[in-house]
Amino acid sequence: MSSKQHIVIVGGSTAGFICALTIRRYNKDARITVVRREKKALITCGIPYIFGTLLDVEKDLLPDKLLVSESIELLIEEVKSINRSEKTVLLSNGRKINYDKLVLTTGSIPVKPPIPGIDLENVFFARKDAEYLQQLLTALEKAKDVVVIGGGFVGVEFAEQFRKRGLNVTIVEMLPRCLQLNFDEEYCVMAEEKLRKIGVRVITNEKVEEIIGSGGRVEGVKLAGGERLKADIVLVAVGVRPEITLAREAQLKIGEMGGVWVNEYMQTSDEDIFAAGDCAEKFSFFTGKPVNLRLASIAARETKIVAANLSGFRIKNSGTIGCFATAIDDLGLGVAGLTEKAAKDAGFNVLLGLATTTDKHPGAMPSTKNLRVKLIFDRSTKTIIGGEVAGGPTTAELANIISTMIEKRMTIEEVAFFQYGTHPALTASPRTHPIAYAAEDALSRL
Amino acid sequence: MSSKQHIVIVGGSTAGFICALTIRRYNKDARITVVRREKKALITCGIPYIFGTLLDVEKDLLPDKLLVSESIELLIEEVKSINRSEKTVLLSNGRKINYDKLVLTTGSIPVKPPIPGIDLENVFFARKDAEYLQQLLTALEKAKDVVVIGGGFVGVEFAEQFRKRGLNVTIVEMLPRCLQLNFDEEYCVMAEEKLRKIGVRVITNEKVEEIIGSGGRVEGVKLAGGERLKADIVLVAVGVRPEITLAREAQLKIGEMGGVWVNEYMQTSDEDIFAAGDCAEKFSFFTGKPVNLRLASIAARETKIVAANLSGFRIKNSGTIGCFATAIDDLGLGVAGLTEKAAKDAGFNVLLGLATTTDKHPGAMPSTKNLRVKLIFDRSTKTIIGGEVAGGPTTAELANIISTMIEKRMTIEEVAFFQYGTHPALTASPRTHPIAYAAEDALSRL
Repeated sequence: MSSKQHIVIVGGSTAGFICALTIRRYNKDARITVVRREKKALITCGIPYIFGTLLDVEKDLLPDKLLVSESIELLIEEVKSINRSEKTVLLSNGRKINYDKLVLTTGSIPVKPPIPGIDLENVFFARKDAEYLQQLLTALEKAKDVVVIGGGFVGVEFAEQFRKRGLNVTIVEMLPRCLQLNFDEEYCVMAEEKLRKIGVRVITNEKVEEIIGSGGRVEGVKLAGGERLKADIVLVAVGVRPEITLAREAQLKIGEMGGVWVNEYMQTSDEDIFAAGDCAEKFSFFTGKPVNLRLASIAARETKIVAANLSGFRIKNSGTIGCFATAIDDLGLGVAGLTEKAAKDAGFNVLLGLATTTDKHPGAMPSTKNLRVKLIFDRSTKTIIGGEVAGGPTTAELANIISTMIEKRMTIEEVAFFQYGTHPALTASPRTHPIAYAAEDALSRL
Repeated sequence: MSSKQHIVIVGGSTAGFICALTIRRYNKDARITVVRREKKALITCGIPYIFGTLLDVEKDLLPDKLLVSESIELLIEEVKSINRSEKTVLLSNGRKINYDKLVLTTGSIPVKPPIPGIDLENVFFARKDAEYLQQLLTALEKAKDVVVIGGGFVGVEFAEQFRKRGLNVTIVEMLPRCLQLNFDEEYCVMAEEKLRKIGVRVITNEKVEEIIGSGGRVEGVKLAGGERLKADIVLVAVGVRPEITLAREAQLKIGEMGGVWVNEYMQTSDEDIFAAGDCAEKFSFFTGKPVNLRLASIAARETKIVAANLSGFRIKNSGTIGCFATAIDDLGLGVAGLTEKAAKDAGFNVLLGLATTTDKHPGAMPSTKNLRVKLIFDRSTKTIIGGEVAGGPTTAELANIISTMIEKRMTIEEVAFFQYGTHPALTASPRTHPIAYAAEDALSRL
């Protein structure tokens, strides 16, 4: 590989942005070009927080000046097609660019469910588009009632932020619980309780039959059960699907879950083309099978693997564990790996470890929050395969400890006796660090 | 082993308390007796926080009612001697108790340096004694000027808490930097800067020549350089030494660092006697050699290993990594394993990985703190052997992630591509999770 090779990255959201900067860390000489459609690109996971906390789209933009200062070329263009035999991409302005290596980070687009009225004015989606999100921000200024369709983590985060600005917010979720695809029942219940406590109405087990409007603009939502909810704004967050148009037209292999197929080095079926992030197919760490998980943190890791492998390393993706966190007001919720339900569905013989403690010690320390951890072990291999956390500011890093333990396939005993530090203002007590303590619980019932 | 065996635990501070409760988790039938001298036992790591935050000794007591509710007998007595051939201990009230297994958790006592004036009234130590600490709390009510001798983490925590109540506080440290035995230079500098920012005077590279008093009561401190500091109260925190009187008299083997020698199962040279916590010798995870590390979290883990091994498990202590955290105002400092200096001193060929980021993202999120991480890798094995963290509320759990990685001897590549979750309110951005990001830095300079 020549160090002067030209790497072209298509898509400049989380994955594309990180890919370019990470290649540069390893390779000062490579020519790197990012081609993206959007004039401004968003910090994906920050999007819901524009609407209650940041109150400014500009505060959630990826810092393009970082690309400039790292001598990365940024083209605001659409890529119309890939010519694999020529090794070129064709831009919408008619220009052709040669590539030595191509990286597809084209992301995902929100699913638009076939609900009557979905095209009414003031029906919004979590689109990664600054101008579009500015429209939502402006529309919120005059709104009073908002309905969020979908109680997954994106819907829940939007709802919490809408509520933060004093709006009447209702979540409508088809499944029996909010966050049900990510957490076990009892953690979903904690989420719903917190949502209700801050004043969000939560309706589950219920479908939206129709979005109602007049004069082309939304006025409410009609539920299958008959109830009508007033709505000045409807936010639809029922999932995303990989954006793979370019890849499909270039006849790259597509995976079962609809993402661009990649091998463990993140190469597509064309060895000079890599894919990472929401547009790429994911494979489970546990089963090796395709999984439907799309998170910015996964995108970040995958694209960092691509960057390393384009820089002379040979890094294998061990498969996606699935580690993520969310927050509702002062409640943090985190998960790594399989939930109890997912583990049982996958046929594991499950052993649980449970712990309840506080995130400071003694409990009389100010701002102490309750901490609750559930670990999921596989009885046959005696290794950890999942964990859930509910707590305060340390929730996500606790989930990250669990994720590390899963990756290293640590045994119940190793988890129970892992070496941790503690401090009154920063952690649970030495006796009850929740991860060790939960594993001890599992050991005691082995 | 009969399940009705009698386990006697000598010492009821952190290690003894945890040992009793953990044995009970695994063994509902064992007879468990804790013998301790103190009527009330303290939550060790909370002690400094009595004086600025909790403002009440009672809020930092171990909950004895937990022992009662778990049918653990608590005797407030001193153990005068151990008769190993009879398998009895003799109490100060003349009573003899039989044991099947004995656990020594006799802790440590503060070092009393040979400084003239050390016995003056209002010269205090960080003694784990509720009545004594109440005297300090009462004395503080009338105090204005306080000198803390020793800028290790105990001294620093006391100083920060004394300052919190508005006192004039000076730390006098013999070494060039506060916290120097725990952190590398640049982290010590951050600690000192924060101490100064909150108004603590920090004097380093300086010895106390004499503690001055009149009428038997302290009035000041005279430094070797000649300066005199006013002091209504002096707190001496220059380290602890293991309390091993009983063990020595019972002719148990004593280790090089002055702790009761134990094997990897935490058994002393008498297989029916275990030792854990501050009184027990520690061995380095890295070198297998004795190390001088005494922390409540280490005590907790050791005593949990004892509890498991008294309950039919066979758990090995892999050696002490040394993971701990402290806080100065809103600055958290954490460390796991070897510092750069310690690694170099031990002969490792060191590769560093550095990262600076924020603990939320985007940086415009409220209450965002800077996060700084330094990872220490061994070039020859390419594994992680240490890490330091400066940040906010997540500091200790970040150190705990590093500790887990050290225990599993993770390679630079494994650390760089570990699977983490992120969230705007809870973590750094997907691009810059400080542990992965620091490892990436190391990779880029490999």
